[in-house]
Amino acid sequence: MLVVKVGGSGGVDLERVCRDVARLLKRGTKLVLVHGGSREMDEISQRLGCPPRFVTTPSGFKSRYTDRGTLEIFVMVMAGRVNKLLVERLQAHGVNALGLSGLDGGLVRGRRKGTIIALENGKKRVLRGDYGGTVEEVNTSLLRLLLAEGYTPVVAPLAIGEESEPLNVDGDRVAAALAGALEAEALIILSNVPGLLKDPADEDSLIPKVPRAEARRYLERYAQGRMKKKLLSAIEALKGGVRRVVLADGRTETPISRALEGQGTLIE
Amino acid sequence: MLVVKVGGSGGVDLERVCRDVARLLKRGTKLVLVHGGSREMDEISQRLGCPPRFVTTPSGFKSRYTDRGTLEIFVMVMAGRVNKLLVERLQAHGVNALGLSGLDGGLVRGRRKGTIIALENGKKRVLRGDYGGTVEEVNTSLLRLLLAEGYTPVVAPLAIGEESEPLNVDGDRVAAALAGALEAEALIILSNVPGLLKDPADEDSLIPKVPRAEARRYLERYAQGRMKKKLLSAIEALKGGVRRVVLADGRTETPISRALEGQGTLIE
Repeated sequence: MLVVKVGGSGGVDLERVCRDVARLLKRGTKLVLVHGGSREMDEISQRLGCPPRFVTTPSGFKSRYTDRGTLEIFVMVMAGRVNKLLVERLQAHGVNALGLSGLDGGLVRGRRKGTIIALENGKKRVLRGDYGGTVEEVNTSLLRLLLAEGYTPVVAPLAIGEESEPLNVDGDRVAAALAGALEAEALIILSNVPGLLKDPADEDSLIPKVPRAEARRYLERYAQGRMKKKLLSAIEALKGGVRRVVLADGRTETPISRALEGQGTLIE
Repeated sequence: MLVVKVGGSGGVDLERVCRDVARLLKRGTKLVLVHGGSREMDEISQRLGCPPRFVTTPSGFKSRYTDRGTLEIFVMVMAGRVNKLLVERLQAHGVNALGLSGLDGGLVRGRRKGTIIALENGKKRVLRGDYGGTVEEVNTSLLRLLLAEGYTPVVAPLAIGEESEPLNVDGDRVAAALAGALEAEALIILSNVPGLLKDPADEDSLIPKVPRAEARRYLERYAQGRMKKKLLSAIEALKGGVRRVVLADGRTETPISRALEGQGTLIE
C-alpha cells in the first residue's frame, strides 16, 4: 500500500497522476492520495476579498495565517473544490475515489496551535486566533475499511481539533502521518521539481539518495522553501515506520510509477 | 433508520437539529442526513462575481442554471463549506459524522439533463450546457458500511454523471432516493415552515395529514414554490418503499423528534 501526496495543481500534472493511479490499481496496488491546493486557496481568497497572509516563523517555515474567516474559505476550497474535482478526474479514469477531509469520521485528529510566532523585520510578533494545527492521530480503521471495499481515499489537508473545529494542516505532514499509521510500503511526495536539489535553481543537481540517518543534515544543508517541509515529513514518515520516501517529479508521464522505480530523491 | 433532509441554513436551526441527531443516536436510531445550501451558494456566487441565474421550467419549477463555472462553485460550497461545517457541528455534539458528496465512491449516480427549457415572458427558451441532473441510483452498500461502523453520513446534493462529471441535483430528491434505496422507516424533510399549508401565508393552516393516494392532488392544489419539490420528493420516497414522510418545521427545539411524533404534515 502506498500513500501519495500531490499538490493541488501548481506544477503537478493531475491528469497524468490520475492515469497512473488507475494503472497501479489495476495491478493490485492500493493507495491513499493526499492533496494540497495552496494555489487555488490563494486565488479564491483573493477573489473573495480576503487576500492570503503568510508569515515566516523563527525556524524559517512559511505559514498561512488562518483566522476563522480564512479557515472557512480553506475548508471550502480544500474539502470542496480541490478534493471533489480530483475525485471527478479519478472517477473518469475508473478509480472509485472517495474524498474525505480530516474532519470526516474523525479521520485526522490535530492540535490547534492557536498562536503563531511570526518573524517580521527581524522582530518576533505573536499572532492569535490562528486555526493552524499539527497532526496527532489518524483513524486508520476508516481508511482500511474503505480500502478493503475497493475505494481509493482522497484526503484533504484538514484535521479536526479538540473542540471539533477544522484545522489547517500541512498536506505533506498529513501524508506522512497517514503513511506511518498505515505502515505504508512507501510515501511518495510529488511536486514540480525532480526531488531534492543541491542547487534549487538547477534541476540537474538532483540528489538521488539520502540515507535516513543523514536526512536531517540534508534538510539543513540543501532544503529551501517548501522542500523543508517535505524533508521534515519524510523524516516523520520514516520514524512512523514507513520503509521509504520518494520526493519525485509530478510532471512526468507516469509520476508514481517512476517514483517507485527510484526516480527522484529516495530517502530510506 | 431515518433519512433527514435539512436546508443549508436558511430558516432551519442547525444547532438544534444537530443536538436532536445526537439524542436520537444515543437512543439507537441510525440516520443519514442530506443537506441543501442554496442560500450559501447564492451568497458565495455573488461574492465571486457569478450571480445566480434562476429559470422557471414550463411545469412551474424554479431551477438554477448551472454552467461549468457555476458547477465548480456549487461543488465548492455544497461539498466543502456547507457539508464540512455541518460535520463540524455534529462532531461537536459527539456524532461521528462523515461528509460525502454524490461523487464519492459513486454514492449517487445521476443523469445530466444538459438542456433546460426555460419559460421567459411566456416563451420557451432552450438553455444548453447545464449541469443539473436527476438521481438514478444510490450506492447503498457504502452507506450501510459506514452506518454499521457507527458513522453518520452527511450527504451533499451532488450526483456523479455518466462521464463522471458532478451534477447539481435537488437535495429533497436526493433524500427521497436515499430513503427509498435504504428502505428507511421515515423520511423527514425539515424546512422553515410547519409543513404543507393550505394558505402559504398562514402558518396556522397546516395540513396535518395527506393520504398517500391523494398526495399528487394535494401537490397540485396546495403546494407552491419549494414545497412542490418537497411533495414530489415525498411521493417518490413512498413509491420507493419508504413507509412515511413528514414535512416538518426545522425551527423548533427538537425538530426530528417532533416530526417522528407526527408534528408537521404526515404523508403515508
